[in-house]
Parts: sequence; structure tokens; C-alpha cells
Amino acid sequence: MYCTLAAPLSYLTVSAEAIRTAVKVDLNTPAWEQPQLHNRWHPDIPFSCKVQPGEVVNVECLDWTGGQIGNNDSADDIKYCDLSRIHYLSGPIEVEGAEPGDVLVVEIQDVQPLPEQPWGYCAIFDKNNGGGFLDSHFPNAAKAIWDFEGIFCSSRHIPGVRFPGLIHPGIMGCMPSQELLDTWNEREKELVGYHASIGTDRVVANLPLEKFTHAGSADSDSAAKVAKEGARTIPPREHGGNCDIKNLSRGSKSYLPVYVKGAGLSIGDLHFSQGDGEISFCGAIEMAGIITIKCEIIKNGVKDMCMKNPMYIPGPVEPHYGPSRYLTFEGLSVDETGKQHYLDVNVAYKQTCLQFIEYFKKFGYSGEQLYILLSCAPVQGHIAAIVDIPNACTTLGVPVDIFEFECLPKEGGFEKIITSDCAFTSGK
Amino acid sequence: MYCTLAAPLSYLTVSAEAIRTAVKVDLNTPAWEQPQLHNRWHPDIPFSCKVQPGEVVNVECLDWTGGQIGNNDSADDIKYCDLSRIHYLSGPIEVEGAEPGDVLVVEIQDVQPLPEQPWGYCAIFDKNNGGGFLDSHFPNAAKAIWDFEGIFCSSRHIPGVRFPGLIHPGIMGCMPSQELLDTWNEREKELVGYHASIGTDRVVANLPLEKFTHAGSADSDSAAKVAKEGARTIPPREHGGNCDIKNLSRGSKSYLPVYVKGAGLSIGDLHFSQGDGEISFCGAIEMAGIITIKCEIIKNGVKDMCMKNPMYIPGPVEPHYGPSRYLTFEGLSVDETGKQHYLDVNVAYKQTCLQFIEYFKKFGYSGEQLYILLSCAPVQGHIAAIVDIPNACTTLGVPVDIFEFECLPKEGGFEKIITSDCAFTSGK
Amino acid sequence: MYCTLAAPLSYLTVSAEAIRTAVKVDLNTPAWEQPQLHNRWHPDIPFSCKVQPGEVVNVECLDWTGGQIGNNDSADDIKYCDLSRIHYLSGPIEVEGAEPGDVLVVEIQDVQPLPEQPWGYCAIFDKNNGGGFLDSHFPNAAKAIWDFEGIFCSSRHIPGVRFPGLIHPGIMGCMPSQELLDTWNEREKELVGYHASIGTDRVVANLPLEKFTHAGSADSDSAAKVAKEGARTIPPREHGGNCDIKNLSRGSKSYLPVYVKGAGLSIGDLHFSQGDGEISFCGAIEMAGIITIKCEIIKNGVKDMCMKNPMYIPGPVEPHYGPSRYLTFEGLSVDETGKQHYLDVNVAYKQTCLQFIEYFKKFGYSGEQLYILLSCAPVQGHIAAIVDIPNACTTLGVPVDIFEFECLPKEGGFEKIITSDCAFTSGK
Amino acid sequence: MYCTLAAPLSYLTVSAEAIRTAVKVDLNTPAWEQPQLHNRWHPDIPFSCKVQPGEVVNVECLDWTGGQIGNNDSADDIKYCDLSRIHYLSGPIEVEGAEPGDVLVVEIQDVQPLPEQPWGYCAIFDKNNGGGFLDSHFPNAAKAIWDFEGIFCSSRHIPGVRFPGLIHPGIMGCMPSQELLDTWNEREKELVGYHASIGTDRVVANLPLEKFTHAGSADSDSAAKVAKEGARTIPPREHGGNCDIKNLSRGSKSYLPVYVKGAGLSIGDLHFSQGDGEISFCGAIEMAGIITIKCEIIKNGVKDMCMKNPMYIPGPVEPHYGPSRYLTFEGLSVDETGKQHYLDVNVAYKQTCLQFIEYFKKFGYSGEQLYILLSCAPVQGHIAAIVDIPNACTTLGVPVDIFEFECLPKEGGFEKIITSDCAFTSGK
Repeated sequence: MYCTLAAPLSYLTVSAEAIRTAVKVDLNTPAWEQPQLHNRWHPDIPFSCKVQPGEVVNVECLDWTGGQIGNNDSADDIKYCDLSRIHYLSGPIEVEGAEPGDVLVVEIQDVQPLPEQPWGYCAIFDKNNGGGFLDSHFPNAAKAIWDFEGIFCSSRHIPGVRFPGLIHPGIMGCMPSQELLDTWNEREKELVGYHASIGTDRVVANLPLEKFTHAGSADSDSAAKVAKEGARTIPPREHGGNCDIKNLSRGSKSYLPVYVKGAGLSIGDLHFSQGDGEISFCGAIEMAGIITIKCEIIKNGVKDMCMKNPMYIPGPVEPHYGPSRYLTFEGLSVDETGKQHYLDVNVAYKQTCLQFIEYFKKFGYSGEQLYILLSCAPVQGHIAAIVDIPNACTTLGVPVDIFEFECLPKEGGFEKIITSDCAFTSGK
Repeated sequence: MYCTLAAPLSYLTVSAEAIRTAVKVDLNTPAWEQPQLHNRWHPDIPFSCKVQPGEVVNVECLDWTGGQIGNNDSADDIKYCDLSRIHYLSGPIEVEGAEPGDVLVVEIQDVQPLPEQPWGYCAIFDKNNGGGFLDSHFPNAAKAIWDFEGIFCSSRHIPGVRFPGLIHPGIMGCMPSQELLDTWNEREKELVGYHASIGTDRVVANLPLEKFTHAGSADSDSAAKVAKEGARTIPPREHGGNCDIKNLSRGSKSYLPVYVKGAGLSIGDLHFSQGDGEISFCGAIEMAGIITIKCEIIKNGVKDMCMKNPMYIPGPVEPHYGPSRYLTFEGLSVDETGKQHYLDVNVAYKQTCLQFIEYFKKFGYSGEQLYILLSCAPVQGHIAAIVDIPNACTTLGVPVDIFEFECLPKEGGFEKIITSDCAFTSGK
Repeated sequence: MYCTLAAPLSYLTVSAEAIRTAVKVDLNTPAWEQPQLHNRWHPDIPFSCKVQPGEVVNVECLDWTGGQIGNNDSADDIKYCDLSRIHYLSGPIEVEGAEPGDVLVVEIQDVQPLPEQPWGYCAIFDKNNGGGFLDSHFPNAAKAIWDFEGIFCSSRHIPGVRFPGLIHPGIMGCMPSQELLDTWNEREKELVGYHASIGTDRVVANLPLEKFTHAGSADSDSAAKVAKEGARTIPPREHGGNCDIKNLSRGSKSYLPVYVKGAGLSIGDLHFSQGDGEISFCGAIEMAGIITIKCEIIKNGVKDMCMKNPMYIPGPVEPHYGPSRYLTFEGLSVDETGKQHYLDVNVAYKQTCLQFIEYFKKFGYSGEQLYILLSCAPVQGHIAAIVDIPNACTTLGVPVDIFEFECLPKEGGFEKIITSDCAFTSGK
Repeated sequence: MYCTLAAPLSYLTVSAEAIRTAVKVDLNTPAWEQPQLHNRWHPDIPFSCKVQPGEVVNVECLDWTGGQIGNNDSADDIKYCDLSRIHYLSGPIEVEGAEPGDVLVVEIQDVQPLPEQPWGYCAIFDKNNGGGFLDSHFPNAAKAIWDFEGIFCSSRHIPGVRFPGLIHPGIMGCMPSQELLDTWNEREKELVGYHASIGTDRVVANLPLEKFTHAGSADSDSAAKVAKEGARTIPPREHGGNCDIKNLSRGSKSYLPVYVKGAGLSIGDLHFSQGDGEISFCGAIEMAGIITIKCEIIKNGVKDMCMKNPMYIPGPVEPHYGPSRYLTFEGLSVDETGKQHYLDVNVAYKQTCLQFIEYFKKFGYSGEQLYILLSCAPVQGHIAAIVDIPNACTTLGVPVDIFEFECLPKEGGFEKIITSDCAFTSGK
């Protein structure tokens, strides 16, 4: 009664096709020589490929530095990382039928590291090259390499922790229209101007920069225009962009405004994991990888849903801890010097982060290790109260299950158990 | 073989005792005449009762206004609410054995509304009397009454929503030492002075105010001192205080620094529910009620755990939605006028809130209804990214399961289904 | 500008009314003398009160034994508990407008122990008086008293554990029609007859029993009929009844078939907590208490939804542990003697339970303590696989966060840390 | 100050190595010709490879039928599937240092379908060829193909549903010792003998079968022994084996008893998703794929932890729905004919499943579609109550978020929206 199996692996012959790779990257070619990548936002950058609504495709992405950082035990590459040569994004992808005023729905169906590179890095940038949220406390470059074991990661530079990735793209957005681009450039120029006028020595925004502009496959005229006007990729803006939202992970749906015909979706800056704030700037576990997406269009969605900025719905497989497994720190808008600020959430969140760092130093970690860990572990940073003058209150929830030792408050203090440190620069 | 049950209800005769009520309030006596309450933070306010470490007790609390707000359809009581007569806290409670430098662990075992008052309120304060996070958009007083049905609440003033409470005290903290109190007064005075010097017309902090000071059972000398120096109760500070953290709910454990012998724990401002930010100022569902607590002491905990501000661990029975049931809005530090701000989380969160409001207006809600709803529903306000100059990015996750209609993004826009409004002042 | 507060506690004068108590119990009167209670299922038991659809009411309930068990350190009351005098249910409640064929939607808005009795009990019944799932291993009566601290419970008889209640009614159901009642009696009689015919010495079902029947406020004729025909309350049946489903907790919605005009909803047997299976028979933490419900009607729902048995949707505030906090045991349908059974889930689940007991004995617990704990803690009992002949496979997930010590598998075995035992009978 | 990037993609040169593939399968060679696979449990099957404790490796696996089922619209391949040629497992894997009495800890770090085959299948087997839990209701073969889109799957044969995978191996276990194997064979033979003696016509167990035995790389003598004595792979047993536990997914840790030196771990039967019970026998979404594991050893763990059967801890990234998104059905041990059974969980669970099927038929689904769906969707099957004579009560929780339409109970019944069916045999 049973069949005779002459060719048992029959399903191969009727197999559905594998998922199409819409954007491929080449790790052996400099990023700026790959026409399917670009590092500015500008409507004149030509589409690098085309997808249909409803089509599932893979998009390969370089890491955010385009390969400047090595899997080693020195932070020199971080210290000297060239920040004008970053964010080589995959795209822009034309979505058939998308028009200005529509909303592009991007379902992220998966994100994976490249199988041949099961590792990533998280770093503190030098105060004079990028800096970060706590750079007045940690001005020097430092680095941690993270090894991936399936859904988990751990680091030889930060022992005692291990957690599943909340894997996501740091950057995702549609190309701006010329009008929107002009608005961006104008308002950012105004900010820079204002800060120059009051003599701030901080870099407050990066204006268009011709040097190292990569305009994808643009011809020379377009490339020149892009170089001159193209918006830099560091800040998130109305289109999304470098939002660095940790929850845009597997299974999430993003709703992105469309400004140009064909949408021009670009993606990059993949993260294996990140905490709220991405506080150390290179604060996620940065990696190269593959993202699987499906795009759909909501016609006239921008007006129908009164959208100014993107919206999203997280995915159903986020790392899942019960609420009572979050050790939660609080901070107020009184700064380190004891000065009272008026409802300033930035000050409060900084204090909250410092509380975490001081607490965990007791286990033997260095401040740099904890600054990095706080940047890349799936911590929850909340705006708890913002109306009780003069103090804003923020909270930082840290899942205790990421630690391989007991870390909850207890009488008698804690034992030092961590005895090694993260990677520093050779000069340190 | 079975027993004969002469007195079947035998367990009554061997019953454990009911939980002791450590602080009782009287709803028929003005708050300021009740010696077990007080409305300033000052080490000279006498203890109102004493508990043992490990003892479970009930503490009754008035609502934050001490009964100024009625269950009716007018916001007049909000408009004219006297903000110098608020926060009559229950305590200070002496905890046997607590000493400066210890950490007081307060487990909240339950919070319940008073059985005879199964309702609360959430309101927008007038811009000139309290104001709120969005008072430039919503300058006038408005109010919503919420009815409690066990764990759920709903409002005749905001139809179409219903959700379980994330019930918690807005205020909890130990009495400051004289030294800490002086620090508070000094730094807040400095802030007020600075803002006066630059001509700000906003109230940026409330300094000590003798009028309407209630120093509990203090004798007249002490009461005079408290009136003169006592810290006002609006802001959260290092001791906790008016933190308005929504997750300090049933089952949570708070770790509070102790500054005076006996700790002097005070509690009040109970909330049936609140969203991150408590943005409309009277932004939680305010209620009178009973909180059940157990205190324990970690000797020398402040130093051993490097505590500056409180820490906590949330409880295990928070309302629980899956991640993919949160419609999430994004906002950046570009304000309503299009002006670019430098990494300003406050601006970003305001934009995020406004995005929510515009989206849900499409269903027929007024802006005031949504401002109130956003204040009191269990929404998640996150600091998503804080290092991508010049834009901070915040997110606001709204659980769609609180709505009794479908509200997820879809093509074709939404139907207006809400046709009534919240309560306004008689003059409006 | 502020109002003068002559009568500050004004909200009292406009207060919403407290929730109405539809069924009140009297702890000082024998259960069988209270006409609003009954202990049989029969359509001729008169309604004890009436509610409107949409009305929120409180219903008070005795514990399942009607007060036979004391808060003490002996299991004698368990050993001699009279099982013909149990389940004095509160009701039947008439729901205005409900008719046969409708579905009654019962939303459980809250369940609370009586404030004056913050404790409950969980017990092993003697093999000859009730028995239980593992009575061949644990034939003797034993008992544990549980003290309630708000949402938490702990027991002096089972040290080292503490958990939040998953509080729920063990019994909830509408009155059967005469036809349905006849079906029940017939099929159960047949079962008893069959087992008698093969000489089983186990009690396999409890048929109608006139003695100790309590027919509520029925007149003598009706009471006689009820006594003769009334279905006993131990088993769950098509109407719900003694389902002992742990998840019918706060916020849940049950969909119950209606068989008689007015529905006749009865409720009782409140549990502070229970595990899947309620394996020790008196396996929940039994208590007297108050349940808050709201009833609504789905007309013709039985046919429209093809209902034979009840359905439900759990509530949003169940105790919430992350998935990786469940230590999970497996069992197969090979019994303790090594005998292979054919896909028998009962055998498999018994083995799974025994695995849990053997594991935790290593910490010093007695088998009886663990049998009780497994009955009443919020453990998850799953039917994992039921088709892989000849072995069924079941799993038992135990939340490790209920233990106050580390209990996860590790090298080197475990230390005995539990040194006291639960309550036994005086004879033991 | 920035570096000059001569070789920008520097990280390639210092890359960590990709994860080693310990077992590779060849889809173009018959399964029985691949020496790294086997389809019996026997200690004499030679190890196919070796891993170190702590080493992360990939293991490739065929689908459970070794390629008999095609991606097409006919269930003929299911009907004629040869069940003696299944479960070609990858292994046995030698784990360095593992000895009898140890516990092997297997962390599943990831499971993925083969990139070139992003699909799987779930099927109803013919009552005369495999059958299933509901084969008296659904005796004929049927099939549904599922397409994978990253973490999600959907089926052209069961429209209207889509869900994330709870991806896991159906089979995982260590090789039995000769003694344990003998026990298995003996007890199963006894069962078969008993059923034969009472004239059951059902196949109750599969005893050793020489035909089509694949003993891996065994020499002919060993292969003959394996063929004669080797335990068949359908049932789960003490070592784990075909447990079909849906929660052994990404991030889970299994604790498996070791019976032979080197452990001899074998894995196979990968599932993209499965519901509790795997009720249709080929009830998971079956696929070929790659599993990433790390093995560790707990010396003497069997005795130290009193293990008889495996234990496990689920992983942190399971699909996550809130509790109030589970529509839950109930069933009792009264069968379809109305006959009362004594505490029989199998009967109760069957009734629970049938309740689900009847409910969802109202939307237009066929019974076969629902039987398949119930087998493979992440449904929760609980043993709710098992002591309330004579009725066992089971529940089945179905996450409503897997449906793309509203399916919660409501007045007025449901509209038929599903108009196509699953795949049947050509004869039907």
C-alpha cells in the first residue's frame, strides 16, 4: 500500500523559490564603489532596485561604518573611525505604485547577521570624534566585541552578561522630496548658526558635506547636486531615517510617509541589540547582515492618519521578561553638580544612567563596560513624569536575567566578580 | 466517619487577624485638621504611627486635592482648585530600627479605591493654575470622571475606551534630613532666582510657603519651622516623593534612602492609572483609597548600593498586552513651528504626544479628551535615541486593546464614532 | 483667584454609589440556613436575587466547605471534613432577559478575600474521603494554611515560596434545564453502574443525595424534588460548574450557555490560587470572599457560536513571568511500575507531577508539601503531544520566581534548606 | 585626524569564524544513503561527529519524511507516505566527556528553515496510515502548504491566518543504553500483546522492524543488531526523543539524561510551528532546516536532580500574546455520543478540540482546515482540572491575533468569509 520511493527527495523538484535578494552587498569592494549603496538623503539618488507591493525580499546591508571596525582587542579603530564615511545605506528601493502622500508599510520579517560574520561591536566614541550621551564622564574611545550564538550574544569584553538580540535596523526611511530636504537643511543650518553665534564648541548638527558623498548610481551632475544638498544620515527626521528605535525588530510593521514617486526606501545600520537611548552613540551592537522585508502601500495615508512622523507596531517575538525581572533606576533633573534644571528630561535620563553605572560598578565592572552595556542591552528608558516642577523623572529598567549572577538589591553589599575590562585605545 | 458539625463555621473562631490599619483618614473632617496627615516634607513633622519591619499594614489616603473635585460634569472645580492645599500625605510612618544610610524596602502589596467611592478623575489644569505639558495647546481646564468596575475603569466623558488599572501611589518617600532639605531649598531657590533674572513668566518651582502648611501633629514651634522651611510636595526628589511612576503598582518593591531615624515614610496621591509622563499634570486617574504595604530595612544600603535616588522592581500583575498590540508614535526635537532643537527630549516627547492626538481625533475625539486619555491610560513613553545630533527621538506606545473599536492603521481613513466630549468649565 | 473651601470634601456629596451587593452571606449562621445559598444544581431552586444586564454587583461567597476548616496546625478537620455538606453556592442569580439558547457573558471584575479573613488553605484529602490525583502516593490528609498579603500569599507550612494569587471562582454556571439535568443524572448513573458491574472500589461519581441537600429558598415540595434529582456539585459539566479553571480570574470573560429563563447563575468555591489540574482535590487555596461581576447577554448565542461547553477569555492582569522563568518537567504514559499505557494523558500527567516532586524534595520539602504546592501554585500543565503512539507526553511548567531560593538545575546537586513540614492529622 | 582607509573592509581579515556545521545533509542523495543520519534508537549506531562542551555548532536536518512530501495542491503524497521510512535523524553526536548518569544540557540557539526551501507542510494522515487524534471525525488525508516569510508563516490552503513560528525540533534525545532499550522493547511488546489479546484493531505501538532500518555508518553486524532491536522513533521516551514539545524553541535549554559514553545526541523532525498535542499526527508545520546548538554537561545530574524524564526551560523569544488575547475553549470527559467517562483527559481534550472546530466552521472553514490549523498554530492545551469526579476538564487557548479577521464572540453570529479549502487526495 505504501509508495515505492524512486526519488524520495521529490519536494525539491516542486519547491517554492527562495526569497529574492533585492540588494546585494560585496564585502570585498569599497562601499563607495557599490552603486546600490548611498550615504546621503536626496531625491535625485537613482533607485537601486524595484519591488512590488506584497513581495518579500532580502536586503543585504553593511555595518554602519562600512567595515572600519575590526574583531580585535583595541579601540584604535573606534578612535580614528572616519565619521564622514559611514551609513552606506542599501537602496533606494523603488516600490511600484507608491506616490507622495501615501504611507509605505514595511513589515520586517527577519533580520540576521551574515552567517560568515557571527559577531558585532559596541563602542564609546572619543569625545572629539562623535562623543556620546555621557562623554563628559567617559571621554575616551573604548570597544566591546560581541559574539553571536543564534539568538544570543555575549562579549569577552563584558563578562557575566548574555542576552537574546532585539535585532533591528537603525536606519529605515523613504527619500525626501526636494521641498522636505530644503526644510531640513534650512532648520539645521539655523541651529548651527545659532550655536555658532553663542559660541558653543559642540558640534550640534552635520550640514551637507561634499567630501565622501556617495550618491549611488547617480550621474555626475546628479551626484554633484546630491553632494551639495544631500542630507546627512546621522539624525532621524520626519521620514524615519536613523531612528535607532530598538523595537523595530522581527515582525514589526513601520508606517513611513512617502514623499517621492516610488518611495525610495533605504535601509542600513543593522543592530543585533540596543537599549533605549543608544547612549554611547555607537551604542548598539553594530553588524552587517540581511534584512527581510515586505512593503505595502496605504494610499493617501499621510492625510488620512494625520501623519507627520512614522508610526510602528512592534513584533511579537521580542525578548520577553516578566515585569518583576526589571531592576529599575530613577533619575531627576538635578545634575551631577547638584544644580537644579527645569523639567529637563535629558538631565534626568543622564542621572538615571549614572545610577545604573554606580550600582553595577560594585560587581567589579569598569564605568566604560557599563556605559557600553547600557547602550546595547535591551534596557527600557521611560519618561516617567514630566510635569512636576521643577523635576522631570525618568526611569531605566534593566532586565536582571541578562546577568549570569544574582544582582538584585540585598543586605551586605556585593562581591566583586568581574576582573577584566573592555578594549581601549593603545595610548591608554 | 464524617464529623457532626455542631458549629460549622469553626474557622471564624481561629481566624488570623485582619490586616492592621496604620493610618486612617476621615472623609468628614477637613484634611488639615487630621494630625496623621501633612503636606510638607520636613524632619520635624512628628511620626503619625509606627510599624515593625516585616509587618503588613494598611494606609488610608485622601485623593491628592483632599476632596476638592466632585463627580460631576463641570470642570469648574478643576479651574478653581487651590493648589496650595494639596497632597495631604498619610504619615510620616516610623519604621522601627531604620537609621540614616539604610535603605527602606517598601513592598506594595495592594492598592484599592475606597469601596464607597468607586470613581476617580483626570483633568487638564488651566494654564494659569498648574498648567501641564501641552498647555500651550490646551490652556483651559477640562475633566473626565472615571468609574471603577473592579480592575477596570471607563469614563462617560471619554467613551470608547476601557482598561484595567495600573494602580499605584503617586507619592512615596522618607522624610529628608535637615541637611538634605536645605540642599533642596537652596537649589530650587537658585532656579527660581535665575528664571526671575531672565524674566521668565512661568512658575518654575514652588518654594516653601507658610500659608496652608499642615505639619501633622507638630506643636506650634515645630509647625512654624515646618511652615517656613518645609519642602513643597509637587516635585519628586532624591527621597522619591511625587515620582508619579506608573509602575509602582501592586507587588512592586521600592528601595528608598533613609535620612532620619525611623525613616518617616509618607504616602499619598493614589492613582488608579497613569501613562508615562502624567502629561496633563492632574494626569492620572486620581482617587482616595487604601494601600497595603510591608516595610523592610537594608542596613547601610545607601552606600553598599551607591544609591542617590530610589530604585524599584515592578510587580508581577501589571496589565499585560503583547508587544504587537502597541500602536507606537514617534517624535523628534523639531517643534510645532518647525524649529530645530538640539537633542531636546522634552520637545520630542511633546511632538510624539501631539502625533497621538492628531491620529485619534479622526475618530471624533476632541483634543482635550485625548490629552486626558494620554495622561491616564497605561501608555509607554520611551527615550528611543538621544545621541543622533541634532534630533532626539522618543516613542509613545499605546495599547490598542484599551479601545473598544478597531484603531490600527488602514486604508481609507477612519469613521467618526465619538460624538460626546469631556467636562469643561461653565464659562466655556 | 482660588476658591474658598468651606466644605473641602465636597466630592462626598456627589459621590457615585458604591457597588451593590447582590448576594450577602452571614458567617455566623450555618450555611444551610441561608436561603440565598444552595448546594445542588436544579431548575426548581428559586432565584435568590436579580440583576440587570450591564449591572455591576458584588456576590459574597463562603469557602467551599462552608467553614469546616480552621486556621490551625492540624489536618484533622480535613480528614473528617463532611463532603456531603459542601459547595454552598451563592445564587441562583436571575439575569433579566436571559432565555434558553442565549449565552450569558460574565465578566469577573474582581475577586477578593474577605478583609476580616486574610487567609486560605490547601489540603490533601484522605484517600478514603475525597482522595486526589496522587492518592496512591499520598493517602493521608495534610494541610497548609496560606496567609494573604495583598496580592501575595505565603504559608508557614510550606516555607520558601511566595507568589501572587491568580484569584478566581472554582464554580460558576447557570442552572440546567430539567432535560439537561436528566441527561446528567442518566449518564452518571450509567457510569456508576458500569463500574459497580466490574467491581471497581473507587467512587467514580456522586449521584443525587437527599441528605444535606440545601435547595435555597425552595418550598418543601420543590425542596424534595431538588433533593431527589438535584445534580451534585463536584463535577464540571456543560454549564460550567466546578470547572476549577485557574485562569477565570480578574478581568476574564466567561461565555456560559443559558438553559432556563433568567439564567440562574450561581457562583462559589473561591480560590486565591490554583495550578493546572488542582491535583490534590482540595488543591486550590480555598477561601471565602467577594466576587464582583457584570453580566451581559448574547441572544441566541448557543446556536450562533455552536457552543456545547463554556468558552472564556482570560483577564489582562494574570501573574506574569517570562517564558524562560518556567522550569518545565515532562512525563509519559509509562506508569510508576514501568507499565506502558496507550496514549493515556492521565498517566503521563501523573508522572510529570511526580518528577516535579522528586526534584524539589532535594531541597528538603516533604512529598506532601510539594503535592500541596503543585496543586495551588500557578503551574502550567500542558498536553504536549498526544499522537505519538504509544506515549502521550505532558509538561508541567513551574515558575521559578515563586521560590525564594535558586532552584534551577546546576552541577553538584542542591542543599537541603527546608526543615519544617505541613500540617498532618493528630494520628499521624 | 581621521584615518585614511586604504582597506576599509578591514574587519573581514580579522573575522571570527562562522559557526561550524557538525552534521551536513545532502538533499540530492536518498536519506538512507547518508551515514550521518539514522532512523532507530540503538547504542550500537556509531557517532556521526563529535562536539566539545561549550562549542556552538549547526546541525542540518531533513524534514521528518526525508523528502516525501511536495509543495503542491494534492494530498496524495500524504496518503501514500511510507511511515517506515521516516525520522532520518542527524547524529548521533558524541559530546566529549559525557558519561552515563550525567545530564546533557542542550541549548537551542536558533532553528531556521533552509534558505532555499522557505516552506513547510502540515497534514492529516489517513486513518489507515498513521491516523491522528480526531481520525474518527477526519479519516481522510489532507494537506496544507505553509509559506515562510521570515518569522511568519501563512498558507494558501488555510486563508485568513498568519502567525510567527514557534520553531523547534520535534525530536531530540540521547542514545539509550542497551538496558534501557531492552526495557522499552519489553514494555511496548507487552502493550501490543495485550491489545492483540483483546482484539483491538488499532496499531498501538510500532515494534522494531528490520525493513528500512538505517543504522548510520554501522558495519553490517551492528546494522543487523540495530535492525533487530532498534527502537522505533515515533514515541517520546525517557531520553526525550519525539517529544513534539512546541516550546523547545529558540533559546530553550533542555536537560537530557545520558545513558552511554559520549551521550549520542540525535536531532530531527524540525517544526516551524506546532500547537499543544500536535493533534493531526503530521500536525506541526514540518520542514527541513538547520538547528544551532550548544551542549554542556552536568556531571551526575541524573541522580542529583532525581531525573527520570527530561526537563527544559523555554526560550525568551516565544511569540508573545497578552493573556486576554486567547479565546479559550473547554471540554469534559463526556464523549461525542454523550457517554460519561471517568476523569479521562483524552476524551476531554478531544471535546475541547471539537468545540474549537465547530466555532470556527461558522467563518466558512472546513473541518479539515481547522483540524490542521489546530495542530500547527501555537495553541495552548491545558489540563485544567483532573480531580472533580467524574469529569476531567481541559482547555484550549487560541491566540486570536493569528486570525486576520475579528473572531471574538459577538451577538448576531459570524459571516462566512473563507471560501477555499485545503488540499485533498485526488480520489476525494
